[in-house]
Amino acid sequence: MNAYDYAVSDRAAALNELKDLLRIPSISALGEYKGDVARAAAWVADHLKKIGLTRVEVSATAGHPVVYGEWLGAAGAPTVLIYGHYDVQPPYNDMATKDPAWQTEPFDPVEKDGNLYARGSADDKGQIYAHIKAVAALLQANGTLPVNVKFLIEGEEETGSTALYEYIPAHAAMLKADVCVISDSHMLATDRPSIVNALRGLMYLEVQMQVAKSDLHSGSYGGLVLNAAQLMAEMLAKLHAPDGSVAVPGFYDAVVPLTPAEREAVAQVLWTDEELLHEAGTLLEQGEREYSRRERVGLRPTLEINGMVSGFTGEGSKTVLPSKAMAKISCRLVAAQEPDDIFDKVSGYIKSLVPESVTLRFLRHGNGLPVKVDIDSPQMQAAVEAVTRGFGAAPVFMPEGGSIPIVATIRSVLNNIPVLLVGFGLPDDNLHAPDEKFSIDQFYRGIDTSIALLEALGRK
Amino acid sequence: MNAYDYAVSDRAAALNELKDLLRIPSISALGEYKGDVARAAAWVADHLKKIGLTRVEVSATAGHPVVYGEWLGAAGAPTVLIYGHYDVQPPYNDMATKDPAWQTEPFDPVEKDGNLYARGSADDKGQIYAHIKAVAALLQANGTLPVNVKFLIEGEEETGSTALYEYIPAHAAMLKADVCVISDSHMLATDRPSIVNALRGLMYLEVQMQVAKSDLHSGSYGGLVLNAAQLMAEMLAKLHAPDGSVAVPGFYDAVVPLTPAEREAVAQVLWTDEELLHEAGTLLEQGEREYSRRERVGLRPTLEINGMVSGFTGEGSKTVLPSKAMAKISCRLVAAQEPDDIFDKVSGYIKSLVPESVTLRFLRHGNGLPVKVDIDSPQMQAAVEAVTRGFGAAPVFMPEGGSIPIVATIRSVLNNIPVLLVGFGLPDDNLHAPDEKFSIDQFYRGIDTSIALLEALGRK
Repeated sequence: MNAYDYAVSDRAAALNELKDLLRIPSISALGEYKGDVARAAAWVADHLKKIGLTRVEVSATAGHPVVYGEWLGAAGAPTVLIYGHYDVQPPYNDMATKDPAWQTEPFDPVEKDGNLYARGSADDKGQIYAHIKAVAALLQANGTLPVNVKFLIEGEEETGSTALYEYIPAHAAMLKADVCVISDSHMLATDRPSIVNALRGLMYLEVQMQVAKSDLHSGSYGGLVLNAAQLMAEMLAKLHAPDGSVAVPGFYDAVVPLTPAEREAVAQVLWTDEELLHEAGTLLEQGEREYSRRERVGLRPTLEINGMVSGFTGEGSKTVLPSKAMAKISCRLVAAQEPDDIFDKVSGYIKSLVPESVTLRFLRHGNGLPVKVDIDSPQMQAAVEAVTRGFGAAPVFMPEGGSIPIVATIRSVLNNIPVLLVGFGLPDDNLHAPDEKFSIDQFYRGIDTSIALLEALGRK
Repeated sequence: MNAYDYAVSDRAAALNELKDLLRIPSISALGEYKGDVARAAAWVADHLKKIGLTRVEVSATAGHPVVYGEWLGAAGAPTVLIYGHYDVQPPYNDMATKDPAWQTEPFDPVEKDGNLYARGSADDKGQIYAHIKAVAALLQANGTLPVNVKFLIEGEEETGSTALYEYIPAHAAMLKADVCVISDSHMLATDRPSIVNALRGLMYLEVQMQVAKSDLHSGSYGGLVLNAAQLMAEMLAKLHAPDGSVAVPGFYDAVVPLTPAEREAVAQVLWTDEELLHEAGTLLEQGEREYSRRERVGLRPTLEINGMVSGFTGEGSKTVLPSKAMAKISCRLVAAQEPDDIFDKVSGYIKSLVPESVTLRFLRHGNGLPVKVDIDSPQMQAAVEAVTRGFGAAPVFMPEGGSIPIVATIRSVLNNIPVLLVGFGLPDDNLHAPDEKFSIDQFYRGIDTSIALLEALGRK
């Protein structure tokens, strides 16, 4: 039985194992789930051992553990570093009250209409597990692998990969590889496969504002004393210009303008009204209208308000003048914007928008350089071959609006090795949202594609 | 022993009883405290019986109970209706996480520097209990009262007095009185007593906004799809004009302009920087700068954002595009603004500020007509005499920025009887805020003033 046949025979087991992993609420952002995150790390490490990797380590960090596993028995063959993450986004904005928008329980995976519904199913447990099962199938079928394989699977991707920024330089020799494979993105459609050729960077900040020593009664001070909710709303409203562009001075200074070739390439992958409505559930748009949808999401930087809160938000009424307000703001960056520089510009602009004696506090929660991928390498040719085999059609290249901030570090520490961003998700997977799902067919095709990719890389 | 001497001898007991009442978390706004609200109603009714009222009733309503008590043994003498409330504001904006701004536990009363710290101490348990103890002292000392007394003490003042709007018309004959006394406000200072001659009205609404079927990943849709947090912030920022006035079209249409005499009278009760800083903890101002501080708070209408929330507000980061946002907005009204008309204008303006296909939902949480008080009645003369006796100085008249919405109903149902707004609070009582307190000296002076008021009204 070859590896593909073995993988087919093992599909039911693979799906059940993935469900086990999805039952662990490994929410890296919330301290109360620290034990579950550790449990997920141990689960991944166990399975790396079970499939036959020769060295598997779970490394404690200041945050959540890093899982490393390797099989180095292919002397002379290239070494492939496969990166992924076992942590997940919080399923609700408020864990205390949940969110009835979920049709199923986020940590109780349910099969429906060919999809597996669970938090983390597509992002990224299902995708990384496809690679694990591909390695398992190759080892089962052949007793060996066509390449050397190293897995680097972290537990802080959803919170900024803090530990990995120390771990990777500290383990540069151990992680040494010829190519890096990452499946933490999506393709256009099952019959329209795509490979990501650009990732946006990230700068995430939280701003806390205080205008008075405590909340005040609106009867006693309404119309007289500064209201933090109002000041915050007015400040947030000034972050964008009327034309939809970001109003922060200097925000676009470092942006490398799109070339006509880039605009032409991205125009090949139109984003129709039907697709947008199906995937996002809305046609209500904002942003820079002089750029196309795909350009706005993949090739242009943005600033978004991810959350805000001030004053009384419970049931009923409280006639309070809020003294405090908080907002979470993130920017998606494109080459050659730098997160530190953008933080300085955004926080400086916010300071300029409020009276001097208002107390402001800034926290940073995330960070990542934008990435442009070389699409002409032999390794990318292997990825094109593998995706063609797995999905029955040649892939197109497409920019991705999301960020995998650690990619820039992997590249810079590991001598700028090629990075292959081969995503098995679909556009309507509801990442970071209620009802996250992963297509079971994409999972199985992902395993096949990974087998083909390792084989193709072995031939390069 | 006369009533004043009896009250002095009974002060320690009165304070301990008040503490008992303050230990009951009778938060009318939050459903989970319904049992505590009922317990507070029963406590008040018990004490009305104990002091010798001849008829005491607790009436169930669709919301929280109404407590009624009467003593009608003064044939031929006037009848005084004393209104107050036993419910309190939520002590925290979020009951789940509390608020470290409180120096003490809100429902564990603590004496410090001559003040009693607890939620509801000034608003309104301490003030209504001063009247109860005044009636007790008169009955103890004299075996009778100089007037007939009716107590009407509700449990929904902080949530809009919903039940009372039905209860008062339904019990108009029972509540019939010659004058109404209300102590649910503050005076300028112990040595600078004041009586309230105007109350602002109230219109409180909640607006819920939805722009997409669910939250979306900012990597997948950032820069493309409408963000509810941003839309809400932009909408809220447009509720005020740059000059600090309310931007809602027609908002000021019904406002009766201030007369030179009104402006002159209110100019007598300046609000200094020192007072504002001491009371509010800030000098950061907003609002209509062409009006004085006292005018802005007492005689001009306002619109305030009492709370807002959207998206991810937990610890850390979540790169989400919020699909929903909520804000609580209230307006303080002055004669002759009508809450229904202002609701229509505010909600209509909000609708005009967002794209048509955004889903908007409005909830109303509060309602109240503004009130202007006749200061020339013989009953007001009695109040002036009583306050002069209780506080050693003649009171000035002062507009109050807060609302006691039920006052307009009491007046209209009970043949426009005079209403005496004799507040025993002080400006720095931290109503609706952390560290609410009631001066113990004001409590005792309040008892004396109430005795004097009932005696003076008996002579009119």
